[in-house]
Amino acid sequence: MDAPPETEPKKPAARRKGATAEEMSDRQREISVSEFFAKNRHLLGFDNPRKALLTAVKEAVDNALDACEEAAILPDIYVELLQRSETRFKVTVRDNGPGIVRKQIENIFGRLLYGSKFHRLKMSRGQQGIGISAAGMYGLMTTGQPVLVISKTSKKKPAVEVLLKMDTSKNRADVVSETEHPEDDGLFSDGHGTQVSIELEGRYQLGRQSVDEYLDQTAIANPHASFTFVNPNNERIEFKRGTSELPPESKEILPHPKGIELGTLIQMIERTARTQIGGFLQEEFSRVSPSVSKEICQRAGITPRTWVTQIGHKEAEAIYKAIQEVRIMAPPTDCLVPIGTKALLSGLLKELKAEFFTACTRPADVYRGNPFLIEVGLAFGGELPKDELIRVIRFANRVPLLYQQSACASFKAVLETSWKNYGISQSRGSLPDGPVVVMVHMASVWVPFTSESKEAIADYDEIRKEMKLALQEVGRKLGIYLRRRQRMRNEGERRSIFERYIGEIAQATEAITGTSAKKIYESLMRVAQKKTEEADAILDDEGKRVKDADPFGRDDSVVILPVRSARAGEDERKSHQEGGGQSKTLFGDEDGTGEAKRSRKKN
Amino acid sequence: MDAPPETEPKKPAARRKGATAEEMSDRQREISVSEFFAKNRHLLGFDNPRKALLTAVKEAVDNALDACEEAAILPDIYVELLQRSETRFKVTVRDNGPGIVRKQIENIFGRLLYGSKFHRLKMSRGQQGIGISAAGMYGLMTTGQPVLVISKTSKKKPAVEVLLKMDTSKNRADVVSETEHPEDDGLFSDGHGTQVSIELEGRYQLGRQSVDEYLDQTAIANPHASFTFVNPNNERIEFKRGTSELPPESKEILPHPKGIELGTLIQMIERTARTQIGGFLQEEFSRVSPSVSKEICQRAGITPRTWVTQIGHKEAEAIYKAIQEVRIMAPPTDCLVPIGTKALLSGLLKELKAEFFTACTRPADVYRGNPFLIEVGLAFGGELPKDELIRVIRFANRVPLLYQQSACASFKAVLETSWKNYGISQSRGSLPDGPVVVMVHMASVWVPFTSESKEAIADYDEIRKEMKLALQEVGRKLGIYLRRRQRMRNEGERRSIFERYIGEIAQATEAITGTSAKKIYESLMRVAQKKTEEADAILDDEGKRVKDADPFGRDDSVVILPVRSARAGEDERKSHQEGGGQSKTLFGDEDGTGEAKRSRKKN
Repeated sequence: MDAPPETEPKKPAARRKGATAEEMSDRQREISVSEFFAKNRHLLGFDNPRKALLTAVKEAVDNALDACEEAAILPDIYVELLQRSETRFKVTVRDNGPGIVRKQIENIFGRLLYGSKFHRLKMSRGQQGIGISAAGMYGLMTTGQPVLVISKTSKKKPAVEVLLKMDTSKNRADVVSETEHPEDDGLFSDGHGTQVSIELEGRYQLGRQSVDEYLDQTAIANPHASFTFVNPNNERIEFKRGTSELPPESKEILPHPKGIELGTLIQMIERTARTQIGGFLQEEFSRVSPSVSKEICQRAGITPRTWVTQIGHKEAEAIYKAIQEVRIMAPPTDCLVPIGTKALLSGLLKELKAEFFTACTRPADVYRGNPFLIEVGLAFGGELPKDELIRVIRFANRVPLLYQQSACASFKAVLETSWKNYGISQSRGSLPDGPVVVMVHMASVWVPFTSESKEAIADYDEIRKEMKLALQEVGRKLGIYLRRRQRMRNEGERRSIFERYIGEIAQATEAITGTSAKKIYESLMRVAQKKTEEADAILDDEGKRVKDADPFGRDDSVVILPVRSARAGEDERKSHQEGGGQSKTLFGDEDGTGEAKRSRKKN
Repeated sequence: MDAPPETEPKKPAARRKGATAEEMSDRQREISVSEFFAKNRHLLGFDNPRKALLTAVKEAVDNALDACEEAAILPDIYVELLQRSETRFKVTVRDNGPGIVRKQIENIFGRLLYGSKFHRLKMSRGQQGIGISAAGMYGLMTTGQPVLVISKTSKKKPAVEVLLKMDTSKNRADVVSETEHPEDDGLFSDGHGTQVSIELEGRYQLGRQSVDEYLDQTAIANPHASFTFVNPNNERIEFKRGTSELPPESKEILPHPKGIELGTLIQMIERTARTQIGGFLQEEFSRVSPSVSKEICQRAGITPRTWVTQIGHKEAEAIYKAIQEVRIMAPPTDCLVPIGTKALLSGLLKELKAEFFTACTRPADVYRGNPFLIEVGLAFGGELPKDELIRVIRFANRVPLLYQQSACASFKAVLETSWKNYGISQSRGSLPDGPVVVMVHMASVWVPFTSESKEAIADYDEIRKEMKLALQEVGRKLGIYLRRRQRMRNEGERRSIFERYIGEIAQATEAITGTSAKKIYESLMRVAQKKTEEADAILDDEGKRVKDADPFGRDDSVVILPVRSARAGEDERKSHQEGGGQSKTLFGDEDGTGEAKRSRKKN
């Protein structure tokens, strides 16, 4: 049996003389990928017991959602945390997805770097083939307990139970036991699904970066999924679905030629099954039409019929150069499924007691050949805390990102936005202050995370730029609202000063002219209201006359709640109706909890 | 030949129906570790051309320094950047280390996760077996060019040249060519060494986070090494060594029982070659004496003579629990080699035109069973920029960390320190403002980096706590200096007001008493100076009387330069001598450049 890494070599010998090349050579050896990540488990989000508990839940839920959506099933996710001792929990996550075929169970749950999502360009939550097997490895490391997987792939087949342990020195799972378990069928009322249970060292605590927060935010970004959460106090929390419509399926795309590097191009040419270069370019890249392929070849001094075997380093460089010069359509963006302005707004409305809400979805852009798009939501005022730095909520492919905020491109984009222009104070190098929550979502076929634990988005210029544009868009709307609110307050003060003297004036006028004080009072009151109303209505923020007095007239991306209402409880808020307002259910489907029924109003 | 990852599967078929478990199973496959990192190359520090150039240099230099030190050779490092085109560079790094034996060359430079440092607990720059092979992989990806390695292991053997290319789908290197090259011997004047050349896409730019800054800071933290840097403009920059004394060798240690997790313990028991549990505990852990081993076994209900094969899960848990309860000596800390207060100060003095310098080295502490220690240096005032956020310079095992500052435990520790207590202003959630540079060094047998690119230290409580203690220590000294400086200014003002009237008083007194005005003037002047001097000298910062007027009387960790001098040029600074000051060469060895000769002064 191999000596384990931790114990090799044995007691190091004391050396006064330096080591020779030969001695150093003898110490060189391979490091298995799971040994590497076991020692660096913080890279995978298992830094400490609290975060480890969250990460395990997150990886299992992300997989469950991906599997359901890929199988076109409305997800019903069950999450249970069973406390075994002060520091030990059993995490169980069950879905109604398609199940996992028997032979893949030990690979998916027992090997790092194994999965279906890495080699595809397709928007999904998982992308690396690390997450769930890492959670199992962490559980094994901290408790010595194996992972239990139960899977059922069809009504006709019995559920299968597999107990497995990862062997980190080989990055393979040892199957401890496997049995058919027809009695588990009750777990899967739809006739199919997967359940994974991992026992691990953890800590359960509410608040920021908790399992509860993760599920809350996941429910916001995934209104088509329902979640049942049984917490360690055995309380059952239900997140009902807000819509029974599955989001459109995200599409898989081929790589875009402009995102390919020379070395990668050479590798692709070396390995392609195509025989001619034209076919290779057209079939293995997106947006390469026969005419684009021809143009690339011409510029590279070859023809589309040139044999792939004739392409050496020089020709490959010429093709690479030609690709950079030729105009090629941007990659398709229908592979991306945004959350959408409507769902963003309804999510924020559901979650936050604020007074002003706005959201925007940017058009898709491209970084390193990968299409992506940015969405931003913003909530202001109401009961949001006034004396704190603003809160940034981040999502990538509908997954909430709860850690490493300051390393995230979205955080940098928020820092670099000039919030002072929009009426929000900000000190240098820090987040702005004020009652604001900003939500940033990046959707992409490949999200560049800063670490394997997928907690922060890497800082690509193109991505940060799009985020800033989106933030500016919602910021401008906030600025308009704040200036308008300020002007309304000013007008209100003018009016109340006006009104304070109208009574006396009316009486004095009656004494002089004999006209009834009441009549004069009413007439002056009308004038006063009209005056202040006019100022209110006819000038825009820069004092220019505008036809439409409401700056957000037909803007679907803005929701303004009456301030009193925003401060009051939910029920009161629901019943509010204003003159120009309109009431509309934001979710297609009403779930009866009252949450989804909250109406939308305009000022 | 396998289809490359980027092109599989071919054009995705449009699906309206969801995928089945079987279809999803067919898409599952293994991901090679180099495929993974090629796609996630930003995890390794190859985010963009500028950073990629820096990272490649850094990985090669770190390896060179490690190899030299392990072989007890004073490092002479040669770094050359040859610009091939606007965006293409050839990076060459050569050392006078022990060389690399032939059969290991393709492993070390052509495989990710291969090396000698991962499986040992020993303070070194490299620790993962990823860096240099990743640089080669990035070069291949961006330019298609192989890596050239030249190695010579002894005077008697000819140099060997190996040209190699990584095959990312297998994580193995293909050797393109290998030849004996006696004519390369001229490269290695000491008769041994290694040279690696990588052609890559890069961008060379001075300033923060540049190759120049990296070499500057590396020279500060490694005064025993000499560096020659030939930049793309073919300018030769020399960093001579400041001392010809090698730092003490860092020692390898065994894991400490308190840092082991249950699962890992079980694995170690399963794999040990020892037959009895007592021997296992004593031989495979540090600080387990026969009596400690006995106590652990007793508490676990077994004896040191219990056969390892008899230990099941239950017994292992009992041993684990016993380890937590038994008192075990902290791990040895002589495995850590600090830079040292003296070298820290001399580094800061060499680099920064400030007026106040202080440094501290904390005693070693332990996180997750790993010994570590924190050192902090601080420079204030002089020509440091006044209206900017303070600058934080970070090192781990003597390697400068230039990226991801805000993700680093050191940055968080600086944020959480109450700088206002020390006279430095700071707004909430942001770095303090002012003419301050803080340098933080962590030395450990295992530095927990937040990513494979080793740019930031993960935020363990124990580490952040030690950093804060060190920052508080230098902060307090800065506070004393600043209050003292303020008081001196106040006294100076008092004295000058005093002196302003002495002339008139002297004249008036002469008129009345007939005593010579000059005599009176001189006498009054003496009194005035004595008065203000006294106030200056006898009260400490809180106004209490102290014997020793200099708060930093015998404190070796503080250097104060006269402000005029700090503001003046370097040469002037060198010649300054003050009453209470003392002149001392900080480096053991004078190198004739004048840099290392800068003298140390006290106020």
